[in-house]
Amino acid sequence: MYYDASAESVSRPLVHYTPKAGWMNDPNGLFYDRSESTWHIYYQYNPNDTVWGSPLYWGHASSKDLTTWTEHADALSPSSNDSSVFSGCVVVDRNNTSGFFNDSINPEQRVVALYTEHSPVSQRQFAAYSLNGGYTFEKYEHNPVLDGNSTQFRDPKVIWHEETEKWVMTATRSHEYVVQIFSSSDLKSWELESNFTRHGFLGYQYECPGLAKVPIVGNSSLVSSGVTHKWVMFLSINPGSPMGGSFTQYFVGDFDGKVFTPDTAETRLLDYGKDYYALQTFSATENDDVLGLAWASNWDYAAYVPTYPWRGSMSLVRNFSLREYQPNSEAAQLNLFSEPIINYDALRLNQSIQTNATNIKKNDQLFFNLSSSAHGLLDLSFEWTVNKSNVGKKDFSALTVKLIGATDKEEYLELGYEANAQAFFFNRGNSNVNSMKENSFYSDKMSANVEPYELLSENEAVFKVHAILDRNIAEIYLNDGVSVTTNTFFLTDGNFIGALEVRSSVDDVYTVSNFNVKTTSG
Amino acid sequence: MYYDASAESVSRPLVHYTPKAGWMNDPNGLFYDRSESTWHIYYQYNPNDTVWGSPLYWGHASSKDLTTWTEHADALSPSSNDSSVFSGCVVVDRNNTSGFFNDSINPEQRVVALYTEHSPVSQRQFAAYSLNGGYTFEKYEHNPVLDGNSTQFRDPKVIWHEETEKWVMTATRSHEYVVQIFSSSDLKSWELESNFTRHGFLGYQYECPGLAKVPIVGNSSLVSSGVTHKWVMFLSINPGSPMGGSFTQYFVGDFDGKVFTPDTAETRLLDYGKDYYALQTFSATENDDVLGLAWASNWDYAAYVPTYPWRGSMSLVRNFSLREYQPNSEAAQLNLFSEPIINYDALRLNQSIQTNATNIKKNDQLFFNLSSSAHGLLDLSFEWTVNKSNVGKKDFSALTVKLIGATDKEEYLELGYEANAQAFFFNRGNSNVNSMKENSFYSDKMSANVEPYELLSENEAVFKVHAILDRNIAEIYLNDGVSVTTNTFFLTDGNFIGALEVRSSVDDVYTVSNFNVKTTSG
Repeated sequence: MYYDASAESVSRPLVHYTPKAGWMNDPNGLFYDRSESTWHIYYQYNPNDTVWGSPLYWGHASSKDLTTWTEHADALSPSSNDSSVFSGCVVVDRNNTSGFFNDSINPEQRVVALYTEHSPVSQRQFAAYSLNGGYTFEKYEHNPVLDGNSTQFRDPKVIWHEETEKWVMTATRSHEYVVQIFSSSDLKSWELESNFTRHGFLGYQYECPGLAKVPIVGNSSLVSSGVTHKWVMFLSINPGSPMGGSFTQYFVGDFDGKVFTPDTAETRLLDYGKDYYALQTFSATENDDVLGLAWASNWDYAAYVPTYPWRGSMSLVRNFSLREYQPNSEAAQLNLFSEPIINYDALRLNQSIQTNATNIKKNDQLFFNLSSSAHGLLDLSFEWTVNKSNVGKKDFSALTVKLIGATDKEEYLELGYEANAQAFFFNRGNSNVNSMKENSFYSDKMSANVEPYELLSENEAVFKVHAILDRNIAEIYLNDGVSVTTNTFFLTDGNFIGALEVRSSVDDVYTVSNFNVKTTSG
Repeated sequence: MYYDASAESVSRPLVHYTPKAGWMNDPNGLFYDRSESTWHIYYQYNPNDTVWGSPLYWGHASSKDLTTWTEHADALSPSSNDSSVFSGCVVVDRNNTSGFFNDSINPEQRVVALYTEHSPVSQRQFAAYSLNGGYTFEKYEHNPVLDGNSTQFRDPKVIWHEETEKWVMTATRSHEYVVQIFSSSDLKSWELESNFTRHGFLGYQYECPGLAKVPIVGNSSLVSSGVTHKWVMFLSINPGSPMGGSFTQYFVGDFDGKVFTPDTAETRLLDYGKDYYALQTFSATENDDVLGLAWASNWDYAAYVPTYPWRGSMSLVRNFSLREYQPNSEAAQLNLFSEPIINYDALRLNQSIQTNATNIKKNDQLFFNLSSSAHGLLDLSFEWTVNKSNVGKKDFSALTVKLIGATDKEEYLELGYEANAQAFFFNRGNSNVNSMKENSFYSDKMSANVEPYELLSENEAVFKVHAILDRNIAEIYLNDGVSVTTNTFFLTDGNFIGALEVRSSVDDVYTVSNFNVKTTSG
């Protein structure tokens, strides 16, 4: 047994779900039980080790507020020692289209899982149903429900398509770079409707596709009047992302129940960080809200991160919407916006720093001592105004927030904005955790180009950031979530963030306002 | 005057072109003069500073062997102090379609430049012609040849389209994410044929498009018999690349003289490094070979790199071909392969190390002392065999070549391969040049997923690498150029690479063979 409780790492994230012990990767089977007001997540789980390995199970956790999670017994087990329960989804079959349920089961708990049964010779889609609201599952006796005669055919994600009154499944022929779209009336018999082939960045293989009908928030001149939603195809690749390893891309378009037609041939990142993979959305949400969760790691180094006795954590749940965005002065597009969901009431925030608008001078700084409190979550938001007329093209013109270790001050994180590059940055490289520093794939600096949130005048541009640092994961949302960068980070165990320092590398360029820090003691 | 010769940096690259002094960015006007057997390159040039700034000129250099370059006087100057000569191309108008030439001009020297005249109120396409083989240019008296009523319409690249017997220009409506395709009979009058809109990653803006008819090398089942070429669209974006800042992507398809039709909706990287932008191909090459050159820097940090009295260097010239490649076991595609062109005879290589096949043990290493010689170019190639059956999924299983500083051994570069991630890596982060270490965009680690070059057996995979390290630029070619990663690096001035160390982090996995090191003393 590898688990030695006395050796447990103290740096476990507080609001990012982690299993008590073992290895976790892709989120699976996300759904909301309206009858119990409970969110369920499942996940690729190896309870026997802290690295990926067969047989894999579906681990299970639930939450009332998407912030505090309760771990449950594994929900799905492999049929044999040489098979695994690979990724998949859950739908709520309220109308019992599958025939798996009788009237004794609350319609909101008619839970059907569709997942990939992986064996050395095939990957086939299986169905299973739960008679107790998702805690345990019975496998359908006539599995598979879909056999593609392939060893690389996986990750079914099913939605109810209201307009055609059918179930729609997306699954990948991973090595052929094909997302196959199937339809069904009963979740058991599936008909191929179309192939979505070789779109976006390909890498080594496609994984974890998903279609979602995403609400358009705010006014947009880009869609006809009365259009309230567009369809989004989510698609992960691994390895071979442009930034290295695994990443998630998305496409915006239309879907008629059979064919997904992207509006353009463009490729977009769902997250600019290194640690955001295998995004899946929740089934059966209220108002059909599009809420999603990703695995907050990267296959290039996931097996080597210094957490114990678990490896792998989930991202925060994000609420996705489409909003009109101008990536430059002449273009407009519908962009996915991401809003993190955190129940702050559950967090017992014990410190709050707020400042008035402050012009940051080169030889001055804002400094906040957090050493007495910041052993837990650190929630940081602020706005900054760039006076563009004072930006010299020879000057590296950065506003930088340094998050400094409480014990070892040589360890710090940095986030900020540089006006000549027009980009936001995050730097996790100043750590003394040698195993990660020396890992050839654990890169230090991430950046994202971002346009102003608002122009006060031709030369005064306002930007906004909201960063959530949760022990070893940072999620940073720019301008209300038009871009997000999600990255794990590792400081020496016990060396929590003890201070914040806000600096500018130039004079008369940056004014910081609405600076707001909340922390918990952990 | 900013130029102080006594302060000149000693680390100037030897075979990567740099201007003697001043700022350089995009390559422009690349062409081959067959009558003189001379390659000409022009480039965006600010002679008055080491950062980008208006007015910009076309700098000029030439080479007989694409390895040794001679700098010439600026070839094109702006019309006024508030205008600039922005990027563009050169074609050889052998048949004098433009009427700019008389019979006294050798057909191979009928050089016409098409470029963007940038002013505060417009970007328009201008023509200019040279009566002395490209050393000076006369501006066409009826400029502009193309006015798009835009401040963001630029980077014309013209080719002769044999099949329709027309000139074809690609230029970007940069902020609208449109590559416009025009045709002309005389280089003066241009007709819009089609728009190539919103393909690939968009970032902030499109720049430097280009079409090339690329030969297919080797057998391919992907094209009909008799098909010898496919068309490639090159396209740069800046800022906003997935890796941060600027990068170059490409699309493979067909072109009928009017419309470019990509084979698929996929997006591909031309180079996996941080420093490869604004790729342009040469006009008038022998056999219509597709040779290209890029700017070896990144807009996110180009203005801050510690070179003096110049900033900016070009990549090596690469010979591009399309070859069938299997990105995994089930897929095949035509991929651009890149072959570096170096005239080794010109380099007076004064050391060569060669080894027999060596199994690298965890507690052993190959070590090569280069301290007496390696002040110049370092050319490294080797192959390695991975014994996949001995790779444990818990073990970070890397073969690493460490390139260690001669004076300060704390400074080193690393390149290598890790078997679990199936990826090649390059790490430039172990430097004591604080200005770059602290630069928020100068990221340390790059990687590229790569399939085996050859399988010796089911479990024995062979890979190949060819790395050229030229003072502060590393170009690393994998498996004969199916992937390339180009990155600047900065060690402390005078701390040249003094040793190579080859290590494996695991036993019985890696065998190294054909290890070959050549150096020059600079």
